[in-house]
This record gives sequence, C-alpha cells and structure tokens, in this order.
Amino acid sequence: MEALISLAKRRGFIFQGSEIYGGLAGTWDYGHLGLALKENIKRSWWRHFVLDREDMYGLDAAILMNAEVWKASGHAEGFSDPLVSCSVCKRRFRADQTLGVGAQCPECGGALAMPRQFNMMFETSVGAAEDSALLSYLRPETAQGIFVNFKNVLDAYHPKLPFGIAQIGKAFRNEITPRDFLFRTREFEQMEIEYFVNPATWEEHFENLRKEARAWVLSLGLPEGSVHEIEVPDGERAHYSARTIDFEFEYPFGQKELFGLAYRGDYDLSRHKEKSGIDLSYLDEASGERFVPHVIEPSFGVDRLVLALLHSSYREDELSGEKRTYLALSPHIAPVTAAIFPLLKNKPELVECARELHQALKKKIPSVAFDDNGNIGKRYRRQDEIGTPWCITIDFQTLEDDTVTLRNRDSGEQERVAISDLPTHLSFIRS
Amino acid sequence: MEALISLAKRRGFIFQGSEIYGGLAGTWDYGHLGLALKENIKRSWWRHFVLDREDMYGLDAAILMNAEVWKASGHAEGFSDPLVSCSVCKRRFRADQTLGVGAQCPECGGALAMPRQFNMMFETSVGAAEDSALLSYLRPETAQGIFVNFKNVLDAYHPKLPFGIAQIGKAFRNEITPRDFLFRTREFEQMEIEYFVNPATWEEHFENLRKEARAWVLSLGLPEGSVHEIEVPDGERAHYSARTIDFEFEYPFGQKELFGLAYRGDYDLSRHKEKSGIDLSYLDEASGERFVPHVIEPSFGVDRLVLALLHSSYREDELSGEKRTYLALSPHIAPVTAAIFPLLKNKPELVECARELHQALKKKIPSVAFDDNGNIGKRYRRQDEIGTPWCITIDFQTLEDDTVTLRNRDSGEQERVAISDLPTHLSFIRS
Repeated sequence: MEALISLAKRRGFIFQGSEIYGGLAGTWDYGHLGLALKENIKRSWWRHFVLDREDMYGLDAAILMNAEVWKASGHAEGFSDPLVSCSVCKRRFRADQTLGVGAQCPECGGALAMPRQFNMMFETSVGAAEDSALLSYLRPETAQGIFVNFKNVLDAYHPKLPFGIAQIGKAFRNEITPRDFLFRTREFEQMEIEYFVNPATWEEHFENLRKEARAWVLSLGLPEGSVHEIEVPDGERAHYSARTIDFEFEYPFGQKELFGLAYRGDYDLSRHKEKSGIDLSYLDEASGERFVPHVIEPSFGVDRLVLALLHSSYREDELSGEKRTYLALSPHIAPVTAAIFPLLKNKPELVECARELHQALKKKIPSVAFDDNGNIGKRYRRQDEIGTPWCITIDFQTLEDDTVTLRNRDSGEQERVAISDLPTHLSFIRS
Repeated sequence: MEALISLAKRRGFIFQGSEIYGGLAGTWDYGHLGLALKENIKRSWWRHFVLDREDMYGLDAAILMNAEVWKASGHAEGFSDPLVSCSVCKRRFRADQTLGVGAQCPECGGALAMPRQFNMMFETSVGAAEDSALLSYLRPETAQGIFVNFKNVLDAYHPKLPFGIAQIGKAFRNEITPRDFLFRTREFEQMEIEYFVNPATWEEHFENLRKEARAWVLSLGLPEGSVHEIEVPDGERAHYSARTIDFEFEYPFGQKELFGLAYRGDYDLSRHKEKSGIDLSYLDEASGERFVPHVIEPSFGVDRLVLALLHSSYREDELSGEKRTYLALSPHIAPVTAAIFPLLKNKPELVECARELHQALKKKIPSVAFDDNGNIGKRYRRQDEIGTPWCITIDFQTLEDDTVTLRNRDSGEQERVAISDLPTHLSFIRS
C-alpha cells in the first residue's frame, strides 16, 4: 500500500488534498494520469449502463438539496455512527473501531466515555444571514437526487417500467476516522442507478443487475477471484430491503466493500411522496394499475474502484536482469494507450516521423503520448509505471521500410511491425 | 426566457433543484438531455484545451480544502458582497441591486439599512465534534486547487514553461439573490486553466489564449456578434492584474459575463509560497534562473455556456403551415446527433431494419436515438425541440433499395439517401 501511494504521487496519479498546508484528512486530488484513469472508468460505466441501453436515463442533480429531502430519506435522523471519546486526551473514535465501552483509548490508554450518535452529513447554511438562512447538507449519497427527480423524468420522457435513472457525482460524509487511502474518504464520487420495477418482478431484475454489475466490474480487469458476493443476512439489512448483496474486494487492508446491490422496495419513493405531498406513483397503461414502483439500486464508488484497479494491477518483477514496477492495467482503462518514441531526440527525421505517427494514431486510439525524454530504457520504465500497454519506437529502419518496434508492457517483448498494421495490434475491446 | 425554461423542463434538459420540496434557490438539476449537452461542451473543451495540446495537465482537486488555502488566496477576508437589509420586512439584497443606502426596499418599500459585508463562501465543519472540528469551505472557484497542486505537477511531470493545468469541477457561492436561470446560481461548474509563463512573455501568451478561448466558444455555435470582449479598465481590475478581459454574451436579461481571461501575475503562487512555507518557484534550466511563474487564467462557467447555447439556438418558425419550436444546436454538441424512425411501429420488418441501422450508426456517430412513438410528424416535432440535427426514416422503399429519408432539422427538408452514404451526410467537425 505504501509503495502504491508513493507511485501514485510520484507519477502524478493522486496527491494528498491541500498537501502544502498539511492536508485535509479524507480528501485526495487527482493528477493528470489519475484523472484519465478515473474518467476511463466512469466513461466505461456510463457507456455500459446508460448509452448501450434504451431503458436508462442520465441525471446530474445538485449536491446542495433542500434539507427536507434528508428528513424524508431518514438521513437527518439516522445517518450516524456511534462515536466514543477519550476522557483523558479527548480524541474521538468510531465505536466499532474500539473494543467497546469501558475499553482503553487506542492513543493514550485513557478511559473511553459512553458512545453517542454523530451525524455524518456535512452541514452548511444557504442564504444571506444566520437568522434567515436555511440549513442544508452536502449530499451523503447521489441516490436521493434521483428519487426527487423521479416525476420530472416520468413527465419529460414517459418511460415504461422497468427503467432506470443513472447518476455520477460527488458525495460527502464526515467520516470520524478517514483512512486506507482512497477507500474511506470524506469526499468521493459515486455511480448510482435506481432501477424502477413492478414489484412483482423485482427478483428477476435484481438477478439481471447482479450479473451486469459483476460483469462490468470484471471487464475493467479485476481478477475474478478477488471480487466476492456477500449476501447481507436478515437483521443486518436495512429494514425496507428484502435482499442486499455487498460485493467485496480483497484490498491490502482486508476484504471490504467495493460496490453494493440493494433491493429497496418502495421505501424512498413512498417517503418522498408522503413528505412532499407530490404523487410519485406510476400508471401502468396496459393493466390500468397505479402504484409506487419498487427499486433496485446498484451503487458504485469510483475512488474505491480506482484503488482496487491500482492495487490489483501493481506488479514488481525483473526484466533482463533489472527490477521494474509496472501497472498491468487493461488497455481500455489505462491513462495512456500507447506511447510513441523517436529513438533519438536530436535526429529531426526521427522526431518528425514520430510526430506524424503520433498525430495519425491520435485519431484512432483513445490516448497516445509522445515521449522523447531520456534514453529508451528510461522511457520504457516510465511508461511501465503508469501502465501504458504499448510503446512504439521510430528508428532509422522506420524511415526505410515503414516498420516500428512495438513493445509489450507485460512481457517486455519487442516485435517489428508495419505501421499500417499498428491499428490491428493495438485493437482492444471497446470500453 | 420563460419559454426556454419551460422547454428545458418539458423536454428533460433542466429541472429546478429539489423541486418536489419547493426547490432550493440557486440550484438546478440536469436531466438526461441537458446532461448530454453539458457533457458535450465539457468534452469539447477538454479535447481542445488539454488532449489536443502537449503543454496542458489535467487535475481534479477536492471541493473541500484546508481553510488555510482561502486565507492565503484572500477569499476568507475579501470574497464578499455588500449586503443591505430592509428594516421593515428584513429581506436582504445585494447593495448593487438597490439604488443605494437610504433607498427603499424593492419588496415592501421599507428603509434599507447600511450595507455590510457578507462572505459568499459556504462554511462547513470537518471532523467529529464541534470543539475539535476544522472550519472548512466549499470552494468558491476551482482555481485554488490548481495553485496548491503546482508543485505536485512540477515534481511528477517536470513540465517546462509555458505549461498549463486545467480543471473542470463544481464550485459554490452563497449568492444573496440567485437569479436568471442558470446564470447566477449557488452551485455551478467551472472549466479553468492556470497557464504558467515566464513573466517576460505574458503578453504573447495572453494574446494566444484570448484567441484560443474566443475561437473555442464560437466553435460551439454561438453567433460571432453575440460575444463581446470588454477590457476591464484600470481601477476595476484586481490589484494584481495588469490585464483582464470579460467576454460578455447577449443574454435575454442583458449583456453579461460568459467567461473571463485574467493575467494574475505571480499573486496566487507567491501568496501560497509565503503562507505554506513551501517553495513554489520554478527553475529555468536553460538560463539557470529561478522564479515564481506568472499566470494567465481563462475561466469558463459551464452552466452559463449551456444557457447561452440554449438561448442562441432557440427558434420558433412555421413549417408547412405549422408552428414549431426547435433548437439549432451544432451537431457536435447536440444531445442526440440523429434519430432513427421506423415509419410504422407495427410492421416488424420496418422496426427490425431500423434497429439494425440504429446499431450500425451507434458505432460511427456520437449519439443516435431510436424512436417509434407516435406518428412521424410528432416525432419530428419532438426531435426538433431537443435539437436533433437529423432524422432518418425507414419505410417500405428502404426494404427494396436500401435508401432512407433523411430530414434536416433547420430547413425541414427531406431527401432520399442511400444507407451507405449516410456517414457522409452526417459527418461534422470533430467536437
């Protein structure tokens, strides 16, 4: 994990938030390559779950919402963690991370006080002055933005059940003890779907979404054996949920939730219907029946996926007697798909040829880099560390016969390939 | 403007935030089509300013930052609007929107009190309890996330001056009176670049970015005459800026800022260097000179661009004796590029043929819709209203000779075209 965080910083993937001011715990900033990786994941998800389907509608709701939303959803009252504080050093801990009431403070050994509830929503005031301002919260999940827009989507698009509303966006939770790099942060990005169904059919759609979600996550390149489906047992699920699956991943700090799939019944829509007084029912034209749809929610954390992919693709090996580090990322999510090198940077004919190929390939594959910095060995190591699947070198032979050296990241093997055949060699599954 | 807001809601572009709870002033939610439009704008910007250049680095910094950032930047002290309140009804107004001190309340006619400063940053507390929590703010601009990561980008990528760091992300301002639809909101999205230069060369780079920014905005399809460059005169610029241009657009509520270009000198980096104690200078290897780079900042508001594009593309005309409304959006930013219709939905051979064409075109052009709802005239009107440039109808002749009817949104004209020629007819400039 330390090696991963160090590589992420050194190669410009992920930096500590507000680092020059000592940071702000639980926040991380994405650099150029980390952002490219994250965007590739998000684009793949959007294509898979929204663009390639005809039953899905995109949404981008505001982070700041009317506080009534969180009263209706239950977050204003119930979205809290039990917190214990040390009677000596006054530090605070999540109760589930200590050994229980009466236990000793993990920091100073002092006695811990009784736990109390701590609401994890960030509060803020909206409006011009304290006495007239409205209390508001940073949304702790994107899902409620979907529920409050259910009627808007119905009215604008007249979709028939089953259909889903999908959203990618930031959410915020005031974690008592943020930790484990990108895993438990105070600011994070979610990709959520609320899939609305006729209650009679929820099991079938739950099963379809389970398969879809699993297949998509594995398509990113996570090893099949590293993703585990945990059926959440009776008594541990939310009271309104008849079935919930936690998909857990083997992180370096243990097997923890990567994403979730929950059948939420009609809980959310019915609560909002009751609290807002707006009818959120659906009319089935075929049967003439009017009812509040039930909902199945696949919920993904983008940053947790980034972490899982960085972790599972991180490799150290030896190549031609030299130690190296590389990221075995799938070509369709790697920040750079291919890098073009002129063998020597002081030979204008090589540089010009490499530039031309760079421009030509840019139109065909997602992200092509040009690199003429340092010797070839150094360039290979740099591209390995950022997970670039292919390196293409232009040398003097290229000028004669239009062939290049194509080097494979994982094996380190090089082969001579005609420029005209490059698109075939670099082809990969559409992300 | 009312017609535009109504169309935006009716057709699922933009909804009032938290609408079923009476809204939350200054927040808006993007529906499926509005999100597609917004994403097309953002993608075009990213491609133009980041992917197509080799001197630009992407960044995605956290919204929550250490409060020291805002002390250094001057926002904690200075980011405020003068506010006046009515002594009778207690309502609050921005001082620049009333006629001055002693004037009457625009709502009730009561006397207005002396103006006082109101900081527009949203505050929140980060951490587990009031006495140990840190005060933090929702960032009022994305720019500071760039400045505090300047050294991280230098260390990871070793860029040479001039180079830029680009970021797209949400920002928040507690506007006293949010208004004018997407123009003045409390939550909005920015696209900002900090372009770092040797101070000796700032004028040349300012001029280049001025041209680039203008060209890009016009490439979206805004009429050339509707974007005005206003040189901000001495005394009205920030004290550290030797040149600032406001690019204004003719909105329905007046000519107002669409985006800005500011030369900010070394103000931000020097402030952060001083306050954080971290060296934010740059070593010019050629000259051996070490200095704090100067900066030129193009700053775009995504939502203001969406509004400008919706407004400038909104048309009402008469076609074959019937009134219609349409959005004359450029093909590369329209939410739907082309819609495929089977002439009759109850003829399986037509539907199947339309489905096949839909799948085939999906691989070639950005966004293709399938629509078999209602008669053809109704479908044309629906696609016109959402700005779809082309509609393609499959009829019985298609089954015989592989030709389709291609209908142009703006002229309403229809022509018979071979399916194999469609990509040529639908070709357009890469976004």
